[in-house]
Amino acid sequence: MNAEIISIGTELLLGRIVNTNAAYIARRLASLGVDVYHQMTVGDNPRRLIEVIRKAALRSDAIIMTGGLGPTVDDITIPSVAELAGKRLILNKTVLKDLKDYCRLRGRNMPPDNVRQAYLPEGAKWIRNLMGTAPGLIIEWRGKVIICLPGPPRELYPMFERDIEPYIKKKFKVSQALKIRTVKLIGLPESYVNRAAKDILGLKPPTTVGIYAKLGEVELVIMSSLPGGRGDAAIKRIESKIKSRLGKYIFGFDGDTLEGSVGSLLLKKRLTIAVAESCTGGLVSSRITDVSGSSKYFKAGVVAYSNEEKENLLGVRRATIVRYGAVSAQVASELAAGVRHYACTDIGLGITGIAGPTGGTKIKPVGLVYISLSAGNRMITKKLRFKGSRADIKWQVSQAALDMVRKELCGRS
Amino acid sequence: MNAEIISIGTELLLGRIVNTNAAYIARRLASLGVDVYHQMTVGDNPRRLIEVIRKAALRSDAIIMTGGLGPTVDDITIPSVAELAGKRLILNKTVLKDLKDYCRLRGRNMPPDNVRQAYLPEGAKWIRNLMGTAPGLIIEWRGKVIICLPGPPRELYPMFERDIEPYIKKKFKVSQALKIRTVKLIGLPESYVNRAAKDILGLKPPTTVGIYAKLGEVELVIMSSLPGGRGDAAIKRIESKIKSRLGKYIFGFDGDTLEGSVGSLLLKKRLTIAVAESCTGGLVSSRITDVSGSSKYFKAGVVAYSNEEKENLLGVRRATIVRYGAVSAQVASELAAGVRHYACTDIGLGITGIAGPTGGTKIKPVGLVYISLSAGNRMITKKLRFKGSRADIKWQVSQAALDMVRKELCGRS
Repeated sequence: MNAEIISIGTELLLGRIVNTNAAYIARRLASLGVDVYHQMTVGDNPRRLIEVIRKAALRSDAIIMTGGLGPTVDDITIPSVAELAGKRLILNKTVLKDLKDYCRLRGRNMPPDNVRQAYLPEGAKWIRNLMGTAPGLIIEWRGKVIICLPGPPRELYPMFERDIEPYIKKKFKVSQALKIRTVKLIGLPESYVNRAAKDILGLKPPTTVGIYAKLGEVELVIMSSLPGGRGDAAIKRIESKIKSRLGKYIFGFDGDTLEGSVGSLLLKKRLTIAVAESCTGGLVSSRITDVSGSSKYFKAGVVAYSNEEKENLLGVRRATIVRYGAVSAQVASELAAGVRHYACTDIGLGITGIAGPTGGTKIKPVGLVYISLSAGNRMITKKLRFKGSRADIKWQVSQAALDMVRKELCGRS
Repeated sequence: MNAEIISIGTELLLGRIVNTNAAYIARRLASLGVDVYHQMTVGDNPRRLIEVIRKAALRSDAIIMTGGLGPTVDDITIPSVAELAGKRLILNKTVLKDLKDYCRLRGRNMPPDNVRQAYLPEGAKWIRNLMGTAPGLIIEWRGKVIICLPGPPRELYPMFERDIEPYIKKKFKVSQALKIRTVKLIGLPESYVNRAAKDILGLKPPTTVGIYAKLGEVELVIMSSLPGGRGDAAIKRIESKIKSRLGKYIFGFDGDTLEGSVGSLLLKKRLTIAVAESCTGGLVSSRITDVSGSSKYFKAGVVAYSNEEKENLLGVRRATIVRYGAVSAQVASELAAGVRHYACTDIGLGITGIAGPTGGTKIKPVGLVYISLSAGNRMITKKLRFKGSRADIKWQVSQAALDMVRKELCGRS
């Protein structure tokens, strides 16, 4: 089967917000094995919306719409669908009671405008919204299925996963789900991964591999539409190939994050960490503590922006700063040793560099960074150079720093 | 005039990446005064792409396409446009030389596959890509304009701003540019802003106001298509109304960020700040240091995750932690005072709370947070409660903490 996604909202047409809903729905449909060939975005104009749905119905089995279900007159999704399908809008008392209960539970009366949300097209199936007042809808029309879903992600996601996915599976007897496995790599440029994986990147369906570069990491995505165990086996074969060629650059799979992988390794080895950052300004600490349960291994982070703080809080020697400069291998290693000492951790990380856009010199340009890792009786220091905006540089330094910890824990540094 | 945006890429249809290009192009077109009523996303299937362009040409003056201009056989944009328009693909020697020069300047020979990128449809206008090898194209066909642009944002953005915008302005004599002014508010729920601005939110074109809620902030966007000074005056009038009603909640305009506004205030008042964070894990420091030049006012950040660090690094008394718990108003204020003392700054910020999803209790639930601000001889402490995921809670706490600093600096806390 194939489905088409229609996103409704003037703020999308104006580029005021990025359409993350379309990506979310597309991803979920892909994992169900539903093909998506078209995604459309339109505004809150009924004539254009009806025209777009009409065209979609000619080429797609299902039309999945998000947005335009609010209580105002600018919310036109339901009236438009009703007009297209030639259905009357009828006040649904069950829905109205549900909306009133929803508001009452939150300690307020239902605003009068919200009554509009209880008028549904004749014969439509109502989907309860647990996170808001906009109702979901399924309408079958001329052998096609039209599904209307709310725009806010916190309302859309649970409704899609709880109600829409089971409905699609049953209605369209979707069985040949696309199997997807993402292999996440760090520490290699895309061109290198491209070369190392050239043969598998050229594979043709039913099993294919794609390459996607992100800031400071690369993903290889294996997809197979082969049914059941054959799909799993095909994916496993390719995954093994990638592992044998690029194993030590793999930090995780699918939904894994670098900070999550580092956290799991620290937990497993029962080790603790502390971080002293200069140019990353707290980003490395913030990423480590994005992981739930990180208090078990993350003890302290210090953001030492000024030289005084490097001395006062972390015991970096003034002579080191004077002799080598604040951005130097020597200061990085004293930061790593200092924070490790103060926080009494197994690992200490020290970072110093120039995030830019100002502050660079010919000898020490913007993007220059030193990262030191202190563990056991060893000190490893790396000198690196990154390009991009201030935010890009901060992010890439945090990637490199976390990867140094990962390698240390994998015993591969 | 109106334009339609067509994004090309299987990774978009699979939801592997979010379509930021469509939002970017839409935003730029809106600021030129070009209406966009449809945005479409399709994959790398020539038949479907041609069909989509054909339909777009029936309803739009210009079609702006991004993606599918790479050197592989999967890149189908140019052959599809050529087929639709009935034009031959011809090797353009100027383009070929430019591609070879581009590669040579980067110390490599042009890979043989890239020759494909020098074959352009007869009569097409070539747009040089300064950031890559994919060429931009403008083709006029049956009174419509088809513009093909590369997919990678770093190639797309400069090409659009340098070449495409001047072309559109001249070709379509666009003069009535939409004027946009964004007023950014913090510290109020959307429903409150909605009520306070109800009358102006109901305005009809040519001057309208929209409301957009983000995590921990609300935007009011004023748009006017009135020409010249009349548009500016209309926007100014509405902006004044918003200021008079909600002035003290306004932290900035247009591209301003909260951390940028706080930074400007600190600079202006020549004050310095230090931050001691627990549940935000470094996020507040990282946001403050996202601002270029922040080293002038940001002296130090400490992420004290364990009780020992709160004591060792910041002098929080053990008795306070034992008596009131680590998540308490007392610990927050000792953190603020401690970090201010150690870093010798004018302002100290102390944050302690439970980011979740675990670690909550009945008395101290997930999302509970205490934020203290120490300045002069005053200590202000706020108890707040947030909902959402761990990341959502961290972000909202960072918003509230930065807003406390902003209010302090505005003399309004």
